[in-house]
Amino acid sequence: MLPLPGIPEIEAGDDLAALLAEAAQSAGGIERGDVLVVAQKVVSKAEGRTVSLDELQPSALARTLAGDEEDPRRVEAVLREAARIVRSRGSFVIAETRHGFVCASAGVDASNAPGPGLLVLLPLDPDASASGLRERLGQLTGVRPGVIVSDSFGRAWRHGTTDVAIGAAGVPVLLDLRGERDSSGYVLGGTTIAVADEIAGAAELVLGKAAGVPAALVRGLELEGDGRARDLVMPPERDLFR
Amino acid sequence: MLPLPGIPEIEAGDDLAALLAEAAQSAGGIERGDVLVVAQKVVSKAEGRTVSLDELQPSALARTLAGDEEDPRRVEAVLREAARIVRSRGSFVIAETRHGFVCASAGVDASNAPGPGLLVLLPLDPDASASGLRERLGQLTGVRPGVIVSDSFGRAWRHGTTDVAIGAAGVPVLLDLRGERDSSGYVLGGTTIAVADEIAGAAELVLGKAAGVPAALVRGLELEGDGRARDLVMPPERDLFR
Repeated sequence: MLPLPGIPEIEAGDDLAALLAEAAQSAGGIERGDVLVVAQKVVSKAEGRTVSLDELQPSALARTLAGDEEDPRRVEAVLREAARIVRSRGSFVIAETRHGFVCASAGVDASNAPGPGLLVLLPLDPDASASGLRERLGQLTGVRPGVIVSDSFGRAWRHGTTDVAIGAAGVPVLLDLRGERDSSGYVLGGTTIAVADEIAGAAELVLGKAAGVPAALVRGLELEGDGRARDLVMPPERDLFR
Repeated sequence: MLPLPGIPEIEAGDDLAALLAEAAQSAGGIERGDVLVVAQKVVSKAEGRTVSLDELQPSALARTLAGDEEDPRRVEAVLREAARIVRSRGSFVIAETRHGFVCASAGVDASNAPGPGLLVLLPLDPDASASGLRERLGQLTGVRPGVIVSDSFGRAWRHGTTDVAIGAAGVPVLLDLRGERDSSGYVLGGTTIAVADEIAGAAELVLGKAAGVPAALVRGLELEGDGRARDLVMPPERDLFR
């Protein structure tokens, strides 16, 4: 786990891959087999996925949910990003995003925003973001690492957030042990490990939200495959929590 | 992340800490600040937390849930470990355990069991298991590492399992960023990171279910604190998914 410090404040249109490649020099450069985990926030900023509170006209629902405790324009931003409201309490909304992810505020966040009155939204297509970074890093460095775009999600029933993969390229997201045998010969029935989520969570341990380090290299995983974070969304027909 | 291979098949009454200490020699021994992640399965086996299918008299509910597809005695074991059934489909049961964890089959598992017809149950008090291992390792090696007992849990809405902490000692489980500022000066409102779950998930990347490596040392985390995995259970009054 190699944190990549020294990445400057990101603005819309920045060549994020170039900045990541430069930061990776401190870790001896990107090596074949590395997985680069990048915080969603900087990916969104580079892609200009921000919205100003001043541009938002709160709907009646946004005003109702906001009540007296919250800026109704922030709630409006959440509702616009939401495909479905899963739960709400007061102005706190857990929503399904257009990508199918279920998370607080549909991924809309005011922390680490590029300026006051700005909200950061999830990338439109985080898998494409990961893929784009991977290709551009390949052009710049000669090595195409696995790339995971990570974000902090809460979980049902468990306290606290863990970082998970919302975008991926060049790295498997699910490791299927179906049919493999454990050490005693028992055939492992339905074990599918969300390895991309575990990598994102592992990287969070070195990222440090408050320290301004938005990326880390994970080395030595020896994983083969190329998945997409959209495959981490539980298919509706198998989802017992819809 | 240092996997600890060479741990033999565990039986009830084994001195698991002694076997872990010995296996840790391959990683140069346990160092101050290390976190030892141990798979629940070996902890349960050492504690004799297994049940034989032959001892189980299936209830009417167990027989109904089992239908024609499953051994009703296995479902009976699940029901006995469950404090509450959260969801079920066919014989597949997601339950809240006595500890408050929500997971498939209330943690009852046939894989990696010590023999045919045996099921492995979760430890009665996994935090106490972690604490006991920590103290015993301290006696044996002079260093008391952080200890996390890990298990693979599914998640609502997301495909695949990730390893999470079901027991902990000598390591923080929740890292509270409340009141800290991000790099732009924004006060991080309600960010609480489930760091013990991220450590458990990270360790899973090197554990390898099918490879018979049930423990790993995580070095260099520089975390301070001493939490309990029971604190990772969302308090009912804050749980929007009960």
